[in-house]
Parts: sequence; structure tokens; C-alpha cells
Amino acid sequence: MAVGPITVNGSSKSALPLLRRLSKDHDLVLKTFRLLIADLCQQFGGGHPGGAIGMAAIGVALWRYVMRYAPHAPDFFNRDRFVLSNGHTCLFQYTFLHLTGYKAMTFDQLKSYHSDRVDALCPGHPEIEHEGIEVTTGPLGQGIANAVGLAMATKSLAAKFNQPGYDLVSNHTWCMIGDACLQEGVGLEAISFAGHLRLNNLTVIYDNNQITCDGSVDLTNTEDINAKMRASGWDVIDVEDGCYDIEGLVQALEQARASTEKPTFINVRTVIGLGSNVAGMAAAHGAAFGTPNVAQMKKDNGFNPDEHFVIGETVRKFFEDLPARGESIVQQWNELVKQYTNQYPELGAEFQRRMRGELPPNWKDLIPTSFPEKPTASRASSGLVFNPIAKEIETFMVGTADLSPSVNMIWPGKVDFQHPDLRTTCNINGNYSGRYIHYGVREHAMCAISNGLAAYAPSTIIPTTSSFFMFYLYAAPAVRMGALQHLQIIHCATHDSIGMGEDGPTHQPIELAALYRAMPNLLYIRPGDSEETAGAWITAIEAKTTSTIISTSRHALPQLKQTRRDGVAQGAYVLQEAENAAVTLIGVGAELSFALEVADKLKEKGVLARVVSFPCQRLFEQQSLEYKRSVLQRHRGIPAVVIEPYAPNGWERYSDAGVCIKRFGHSLPGKAAYKFFGYDIDTLTEKVEGYLEQIEKDEYLRKEFVEL
Amino acid sequence: MAVGPITVNGSSKSALPLLRRLSKDHDLVLKTFRLLIADLCQQFGGGHPGGAIGMAAIGVALWRYVMRYAPHAPDFFNRDRFVLSNGHTCLFQYTFLHLTGYKAMTFDQLKSYHSDRVDALCPGHPEIEHEGIEVTTGPLGQGIANAVGLAMATKSLAAKFNQPGYDLVSNHTWCMIGDACLQEGVGLEAISFAGHLRLNNLTVIYDNNQITCDGSVDLTNTEDINAKMRASGWDVIDVEDGCYDIEGLVQALEQARASTEKPTFINVRTVIGLGSNVAGMAAAHGAAFGTPNVAQMKKDNGFNPDEHFVIGETVRKFFEDLPARGESIVQQWNELVKQYTNQYPELGAEFQRRMRGELPPNWKDLIPTSFPEKPTASRASSGLVFNPIAKEIETFMVGTADLSPSVNMIWPGKVDFQHPDLRTTCNINGNYSGRYIHYGVREHAMCAISNGLAAYAPSTIIPTTSSFFMFYLYAAPAVRMGALQHLQIIHCATHDSIGMGEDGPTHQPIELAALYRAMPNLLYIRPGDSEETAGAWITAIEAKTTSTIISTSRHALPQLKQTRRDGVAQGAYVLQEAENAAVTLIGVGAELSFALEVADKLKEKGVLARVVSFPCQRLFEQQSLEYKRSVLQRHRGIPAVVIEPYAPNGWERYSDAGVCIKRFGHSLPGKAAYKFFGYDIDTLTEKVEGYLEQIEKDEYLRKEFVEL
Repeated sequence: MAVGPITVNGSSKSALPLLRRLSKDHDLVLKTFRLLIADLCQQFGGGHPGGAIGMAAIGVALWRYVMRYAPHAPDFFNRDRFVLSNGHTCLFQYTFLHLTGYKAMTFDQLKSYHSDRVDALCPGHPEIEHEGIEVTTGPLGQGIANAVGLAMATKSLAAKFNQPGYDLVSNHTWCMIGDACLQEGVGLEAISFAGHLRLNNLTVIYDNNQITCDGSVDLTNTEDINAKMRASGWDVIDVEDGCYDIEGLVQALEQARASTEKPTFINVRTVIGLGSNVAGMAAAHGAAFGTPNVAQMKKDNGFNPDEHFVIGETVRKFFEDLPARGESIVQQWNELVKQYTNQYPELGAEFQRRMRGELPPNWKDLIPTSFPEKPTASRASSGLVFNPIAKEIETFMVGTADLSPSVNMIWPGKVDFQHPDLRTTCNINGNYSGRYIHYGVREHAMCAISNGLAAYAPSTIIPTTSSFFMFYLYAAPAVRMGALQHLQIIHCATHDSIGMGEDGPTHQPIELAALYRAMPNLLYIRPGDSEETAGAWITAIEAKTTSTIISTSRHALPQLKQTRRDGVAQGAYVLQEAENAAVTLIGVGAELSFALEVADKLKEKGVLARVVSFPCQRLFEQQSLEYKRSVLQRHRGIPAVVIEPYAPNGWERYSDAGVCIKRFGHSLPGKAAYKFFGYDIDTLTEKVEGYLEQIEKDEYLRKEFVEL
Repeated sequence: MAVGPITVNGSSKSALPLLRRLSKDHDLVLKTFRLLIADLCQQFGGGHPGGAIGMAAIGVALWRYVMRYAPHAPDFFNRDRFVLSNGHTCLFQYTFLHLTGYKAMTFDQLKSYHSDRVDALCPGHPEIEHEGIEVTTGPLGQGIANAVGLAMATKSLAAKFNQPGYDLVSNHTWCMIGDACLQEGVGLEAISFAGHLRLNNLTVIYDNNQITCDGSVDLTNTEDINAKMRASGWDVIDVEDGCYDIEGLVQALEQARASTEKPTFINVRTVIGLGSNVAGMAAAHGAAFGTPNVAQMKKDNGFNPDEHFVIGETVRKFFEDLPARGESIVQQWNELVKQYTNQYPELGAEFQRRMRGELPPNWKDLIPTSFPEKPTASRASSGLVFNPIAKEIETFMVGTADLSPSVNMIWPGKVDFQHPDLRTTCNINGNYSGRYIHYGVREHAMCAISNGLAAYAPSTIIPTTSSFFMFYLYAAPAVRMGALQHLQIIHCATHDSIGMGEDGPTHQPIELAALYRAMPNLLYIRPGDSEETAGAWITAIEAKTTSTIISTSRHALPQLKQTRRDGVAQGAYVLQEAENAAVTLIGVGAELSFALEVADKLKEKGVLARVVSFPCQRLFEQQSLEYKRSVLQRHRGIPAVVIEPYAPNGWERYSDAGVCIKRFGHSLPGKAAYKFFGYDIDTLTEKVEGYLEQIEKDEYLRKEFVEL
């Protein structure tokens, strides 16, 4: 079968002639696909069959006719990205990966869905680790935001590298959604932002089956969704018969790819669980249909009810040329890159480096080796450390959720990532090669979109985000998804303690660090001054498969002579040693200097205190037992007292007592807030002294964590 | 001055005739207000002046002409509710509270804004504790969702209690928003839901100044907001000159109150920081203007630049009749309630009880005293316990984020809270007296709206929410706001461990409990069987000023003979005692039975183990030191080992070792997932044995938390 020509600029002839040749098999392909889904759920009596069945024709249109990808080179750089934002319908994707020839997705693997096979490639939701899966989805609304990020990554790389006749980066992003992604806030934020950015390389395909878990969508949503999408800056195409009209779907998808102005929303009417006895009902969503019903479906479709997992020869043949077509696409692209590198050797070398996810070898030299001695807010330190890097190294895309004046992430001469036409329509300067992203007041989408930017290719783009630390609670589901997917994303969280002051308890984090310290594969780092902030950034930039939150202060912190940037990588280190110490004081981040001051005060009173700086619990956990004991010295019977105006939860592992907070904050200017909660040096010193006296009297107290 | 008549059905004559009489003073009132805001920020060199200044005319229209409230009876039940969703502009509200005669808001208090006065009533964002403040706002998007909940509360109470001629509950909800609430996901979810519910008693007033922190809104949002609101089921009214056109504003607000079909969105063009040298600029948003600029503003407006905080006699007089008008409104309403109670004595008594926030005295009798012996998922137990209560006691409004089939919160005969017309337009049954709320896939708005339902009046409505536990990460900012505001809200979180199975790591909570265990004023309770689930519900229903998460399993749990419902209230209790025990096993929630089984297994091997059930850390913290020691017995040298497939963070306080999880989960059926992570009885037993041997060899280990 002839492969359609793929031109260097990424456009191609329409697939419609091919479709007309193959359309005689469509009916059988759709039937086979739907019965296969029913079987795959039925074998273990669980799973989500209805959506996958309803979307069958959409899948054929995408994988057979429209998407450009290479089953045998799943990581082909310029592949179209497909995101299944309604991730519970994962069998939809797994089955097409199998049919189109992805090598890892064997028939055996496909049948592992919902089995207790530990090495299965068919988990209950798509996972990025596996061939052909671009992002892990499942929590609704995340995928569509990831897709926005993937489309932005294409725009960014294209603006940087493409040259006349050389559209190196020209892939399209396709995102499948259900009703939920149009209800979830993160999805709505992302939709609004994609419309603003005019991402014409993004198409969202809405599986409009009007059914959610609770029943009809009308139970909860009666808005005019097409009008809403148009108001949000999207083109809208309707497909009325999404269950069968593959030609109409291909036309719509091709029109979407050809869009020059806007992202496209294709509203496809489908029937959930088509052909089953629960077709069009919520019951088709999240449970197997039952053996008799699956048998009946087979009879209705002319299949043998006693045969399972049937994929006939015609259906195999229908998809069989796709690996070859994919290899041809890859070859053409490789040739293009070769010619490009000849013509533009510097850009070509840079493109190769970016594809390998490497930074220029000298990146660390861009970080100041020392800092001004004057007290400096660690949010400002963060700018001092990172902005020279962001300026020079285009790997970084720097975002903020409308807190540019507060987070200090702007470098001199920064250019905004914007559609260039905004210059004329509303006097906004920027273009797609800009790397500073104004996300608006959309913390959740900022982080979910960043996951998409990072997922485009490993460390080709390293996204940073920024907001007040407290608002990383809004973004937490997306921060989690980044960590879960081993994506390198650096979150710059400022205003990270009661020291942020008068904005009050709604803005003062108390319990939030407990979440991020417990979150797997996430480094939550609170640096204590500029030197430790340098250490935090170095750690974050070197963490290629881990997300990091760098948590900084609003207010000025003294520059401490004892801090070491290389100490941060160890999670905790001895800041100030003392022979025959009676206590170890643990200081953290914005309040690190308090520990030193309390140690001085205690010394005046004849009590010797060691001081440990403890910027990151997870990094400390990764150290050897010997190192950990050498830092904490609790095994030698020296009690440790942590000073941090957060909930104590988790510090019990490293300390015997703590001056922490278990209530919400209070609206007062920063210094007054510290004082109000007892974080002045006199009060702190008295508390530590009192504790040392207390444990003399009650030996049991040494076995218990004491709140001071 | 004559007070306009307030009719019993809550409608009133237009305020326009009054406005025309008073309009000669408008110019002076606006100038005075704006200069006062500038002064209040300038005195301490901080705060958010720009928005408040831009909104001055809106405030005059609301507080002088349109809103019905009683400054001297701030908790008057049928008052209009006003929500400042752009909470950073709090001076706007504080100043009108002062001018209209709220007693607590003295001139002195008003001037405390951003001071270090600990008892200030002018925190950096409005706080529910203070007179005239309906909800605490600040985190953007929360307030607008709260307003939706407040409007729903009115609809619910009106549907229950109002009778012909007796509109007991007829207040309107007014919500002020800025650009951010139209960008934040939670705001967008709430807007969509309010449109669906056709809440014609809700008006959102958009302070459309086109400026956010980063600059022009066009940087991040170029959608057609009016078209989007119309598509979402809202009426839209434009006010072009929002800085001066008080009459136009009053007309728009009165039209909004008169709306019969839909909520109303009033798009008001304003100028941030009007009259200052940063008018219309982002610089006007979050910083004082500077002394010279404030002086210049005064000169420009014919005020003496050397005088500060000037409120002249004319301005005082302009507002002076409002307390009297309010008292008249209250009197009329009290009279109405009296007549109502005569005519409908039962309803009247119930209304009084609801107003007092009381449940029927026998509510606890509705809870089963025992449960079937067969293994039962604790999500099912939750239904067994609570559904009889929800059915009988109308205080409860029961919500779900599209997981009705999973969360078991439906009682026989439940009626949905819906606009009654949906019956004809799309065959959805329900009405405003229904108490089951299908929120759609909008977890965040569900919880934020519930805050509004609860904030209407203390415990008059007790909202419950429900979803998978993992998705309470989406809702966390709203859960936090509920806890911060001391609102009684009960969150039913199901599928709360890896035991939920094949949905995989995106759905399996690992670190989330660490957040909620650290969150102040929030009870995170994991009951171990039906009996403990009864205890969890009793605790939650009795917690009048605290929010609760009841965290339950997807899968069946054995009914344990040792559990006690009254043990839950203590947070932890001894489930099974053992003389001369070598170890205490701490069991929790869905895995509580594991601890008992391991104890049995250890006994076979000659190792005696005590077992403690530990459903809630915060409740345990509230117990006496003696009780805590008697339960844990660590002071006697008996090591405690916790068994919970969550991140260990925080358990270090109560245990010496733990079988916990520090990575993300894995997609496997529930039992296989437990096995995969080592939560089968043999492996658990070996780990505990191994630990007991280990601490014999290395005495230091007893001082450290050990992960098994």
C-alpha cells in the first residue's frame, strides 16, 4: 500500500483517498474493536468499556488516517502527540497501540488489563513509562492541560529551530476528552489559556456521549459548550455521527490540523457502550457488561459468542502498513535534520543537544560564587541564582501565575511566550520564541501545562513555575502528576511562612509542607539564605527525573557565613558544631538564622547548642545512616529541637521537640506574626531551656515528641 | 429620611427615587472614600488600594441603595449576603462597614489595617469571625464559589419553609469579583454550576479593571467573557462607567435582583487606582501610592493634603440612616416569622431549630446499633450509618462530585437539588427542596460551594461532600478554607488506600493523609469497620466548628469484634491488650484487621503483641498525656509499629517503626496491590519480627524511626 508523501514542512496530502480505498473494512474493524474491548473487560469482570467502545471510530480516524507517528520508533521526536485525557478509557489507546504495531504492546500484554500481572503494560490508566503513552492521565482535567503544554513545546521549539524549508518541529497535539475535562477547573483554565495563545497546533476531540458516572450530563451541566469554546478563542467543528462516520471525523481532524489561527474543538456525538444492553447509560461507564450481554453483542454483530479476543486477518491487514509508514516518516525527518545541520551547523548542534536533554556544560558557572552581604529575601536570592541561567540557557521556560512582581523570575531582556499577533490586537509584546510565560491566575493549569512542556521530550524543555507557596495547594494535583511521571519541573514557591505577614492565614502556609515532604519523588527545599538558594537550584537542575519545589521567603534574611551550597544536596548538615552540646537546634529556611541566634543566647546562659541546617528532608533520607547520625547525634543522647513555624508532622523523625504551629496563622506584619507565635529569640531560647529542664524531670518525655 | 418599604415577600420599591434625592452628595462620597483608602494604605506603606478605589461607586450602589442588611444586627438571618471574592480589596468592605454603622468597625479599628495590632478587625483579607463578613476570602476563586453555596442555601431554605405570603428566606447573594475569579478553575467550575442551577438569587459583579499583578489582563486572557457567561447560563449586564455611574449601577443591581430565570453577571468597567498617578496600572494593585502621590490626589480632589482619614459631616450623614433602616427590616421580618409560626406551628418550630443550628435530639438513634457480620467496605458502612440520618434530618445536604455509584450516599427516596424546570427541558427530576446535590466532576467547587452552604448560618445546613480520597487533593484549598473558617462540613472520601486497586498510582493516595493530618481544625478519620464508621460519623456530626474527612475503603473489610464506636472519639484506643507484650501494633482504617492478624501470627511464634486502633491523630492529640501513654505504652519501653500503606510522615510521633510506603502506588487489583507492597500477613509478620531482632542488635535504632 502506498504511503502518502510527508513533505518537509509537515503538511501532507489528505488521507481521504486512502480512506475511500479502505472504507469497505471499516464496519468490521469497528465491530472487532468494540467486541475486543468488551472481552478485555469481561475476562476480569472490571474496567471501563463504555467510553472506549463509543470512541472506536475516532480511534480509527486518528491512528489509521490522521496522526503521524512511528510504532517502531515510539520516541520519534517530531511525532504527533496523543493525550487521552479521559484516561479511564485507556483500553481505547492500548488496543490501537496493539493494532498499529507498537512492539511492546503484544496481544498478551493487551490481555493483561486489570490482571494481577506485576509487569503489565496496561495499567488502569495510561502511564508515561510505556511505549506510545505521552503522559500519565487519570485525574480528570490533567490531560487536556498537558496537551496544551505539549502544543506549547512544539511552538517554542519550532520558533527557535525551524528555518525556511526546514520545519524540524511541526507535530500536532491531539487530545481526547470526555465530559469531565469540560467540568474540571484545571481543564477550564487550560482551555482559556490555549485560546489566548492561539495554539493552532492543538486539537481537542470531545467524546460527547452525555454520560458521566451519575447519569446524564444534564444532571450537572446544561451550558452551551460550543458557544463557550468559541468565546474562549477556539474553532469548533461538530461531528454528528461519531460512532460510524470515519470520513467525517477524518475531514474534521484534517481541518483541525490545517487551522492557522486557533486551537480546534471537535464536538463528536457518540454513544457510550454502543451495542451493549447498557448503551447510552451510565452503567456502561465503569463496569464489565456481564458474560450474557457480551455474548449477545457478539451474536448481534455476527461474531461467534464462544470466541474471545478475536482479531481477524482483515483487521490485522487494515493496520499492517503503519509501522512501515512510520519508518518512512522517521527517515524523511532524519534526512531533514541532517540537511539542516549541514546548512545551520550551530543551530543543528544545539538542536541535537536539546534533543539529548543536555545543558551547556558550563551552566553552573552562571551562578554567582558569592552574594552581597546585606540581608536578602530568599525569593530575591532565587532570582540572583537562576535568572542568569534562564537568560542564557534556552532549555528553561519560566512561568508565573500572575506574580511576576513578587517572585523575581524576570531576567533582563526576557521575551514573553505569546502569539505574535497580540502585538497588533492588544499591544502585548512577545512571540513563540519567548520563554517567559504569563499563565494568568491559573496555578493549577500552570503546573499541569508545565507537565506537558516537560513531557515533550526528557529535559529538552525544563519548565519552572512560580507563585506563593500557599497557592501550590491549588496546583498540588498537577505537582503530584509531575513527580509521579518523573518529570523535571522546578517550582519556585515564595512567601513560604508566617513571615510573609499581613496577608494572613489564607496565605500563610502551616500544613502544606507536610504534603510535599511526604510526596514521593518531590524535593521540597527551604533554603536559608542566598548560598543555600544556590544549592537548592543546583540540586533542582541536576535532578533530571525529579520535581523540585524551592520554597523561599518574602522577607529579607541575613546572609549566614556558615551556610554551604553543597550542604543542601545532603538535605541537612551541621551548620555550627559545639563540643559537649546539650542540644541540637534544627533550623530551616526562612527561620534558619533563628536557630543560630538561639544558640548564641543559650551560650550566654551556659548551655551549649549545636546547629543543624535542614533544608530538605527527602535529600537527607537519601544519605547513609552514618551521615545521618553524624549530623543529628541523637544516638549519642543529644536531644534535637526543630524551629519551624509549620505543623510539626514529620519532624518527629529527626527531633525530640519542636517549636512548631498547629493552628492557622494570623494577619500581622511579618515580624509581628513571628512574635505573636513565639518566634522571637528570647521566647525561643526560653522554650528550649524549659524543654531541657523538663526532660530532666520526666524521663519518659525523651521518648515522646514534645511541642514547645 | 424615609425608609423605603420592605414588603413581606422580600421585594421592595426601587431605590432610584431615593438615589435621585441623595445624588448631589455622590461626588463627595466617592472622593472621600477613595482618599480614605489611599490614606489607610499609606499609613503603614502597604496593602491593596487600587481595587478598592476603583470599586467605590459599586460599593455606594450596594450598601447605600440596594443591599438589605442591618448594621446593628449583623447576623440577621434573612440579610443579603455579600461576598468579596477579590478579598485583597478588603479595605473596600471594611470602609463601607464603617460608614454604614457596623458597631465593631470603629474608625480606630478601620485604621488598624496592616498594623501590628493583634486584635485588629481589619486583617489583610476578610475573615468570617468579624461582623459583616460572610466568608473568609483571599485565595482567588473561593469567594465566588462560596457565593454559589450561599445562594443555594437560600433556595433550599426557601423551598422548605416559605409559604404563600411568607417569604421567610428571600435574601439575595451579591458577589464582587476581579479578573482572577474568572481565571481560577474553582471559579469557573462554580460559574458553570450556578448557571446550571439557574440561581436567579445570585449576582456576580465583575470589577473589570483589566489589570492583574502582571499587567494588562490581555497578557493572559483575551476571551469574550460576556459570551462565555451567557453560554454558561447567565444573564449579562454591562455598566460602562463603573467609576461614577451610581445610578446605572443601581439599575443593573435592581435588574439582577429581579431576575426570574438566571444568575446575573454585571460587567462593570472600572479604573484601578482611579485618581492616583498609577491609575489603570498594575502598580496600583498591591502597594501604597507613596506620600507625595497621596498628597497630590488630595489636592486634585480639593482636599487638604495635610489632613488624613477625613470623613466629613456630609458623608457621615449620607449613610447615617442605614442602621435604622436595617432595624426596620429586622423588625418586619421578626413580625413575619411570628405570624408564620402562628399559622404553621410545626414548620415554625422547625425553622427556629434550624436557625439555632440544632439537630433533632434523637438523631443518634437513627444510627444502627449493630451491623451485619459479613465483610463490608467501609464506604458501604458509611452509607449504612449516615443515609438514615440524611433521609430523616433535613439539616444535611449531601453532595457528590459525580461518584454517586461509588460513594454510597444515596438514601431511599432522595430528591435532587435542581431547578424544577429541568424536568421539562431535559427530563431531570428534582427541585430546590431536594437535598442530594450532583456537583458534576467539580471536586474543588463542590467543597468551596459547601463552605458557602455552611456559612449561611452556623449548622443550619450541614453539607457533606463525597469523592475518592485522592481527589480531595483537587479540593484541598476549599477543604482548608472550611477548616480555617470553623465550618462544619463532612467530607466522605472513599477508595482511600492502595487497596482500591487497579485504577493505579494516579488514584492511590500515598502522601495525601499527611496533608490532612497536619491541617489545623480538620479531623481526618480512617475507620476500620462499620462500628468505627459509626464512631466517625458521630464525631463528625458533633463537631460543630470543625470539618471532618471520613476516609473509607473501596473494598470489603472484616467486621472486627473488638472495635468500639466510642473509641473513635479518642483518636486511638487499645483494640487488643496483651500482658508482657514485646510490641504494640498500630492498625489504621482499611488495614486495621492486618494488625490483628499479624498479632495472631506473632503469637503463634511466641511473640506477644498489643494492638491499637488509631483512626484519627488529631483526636488522639486532644487526649490527656496519661491516656495517650496508656494506649501507646512506649514509655514502658514497648516499641510500637504502625502498619499503614501511606507515607509514614507524622507516624514517627506515635511509633518506632512502620510498614509504610514512600513511593507512588501501582496498578494492580486490590489484593495484588497489597501483596506487591508487602502488606500480606506473612510478610508483615516477618518485618515486625525482624525489627524486634534488629533493635536488640543496634540500640540506637530505638531512638530512630525505622521503615520496615
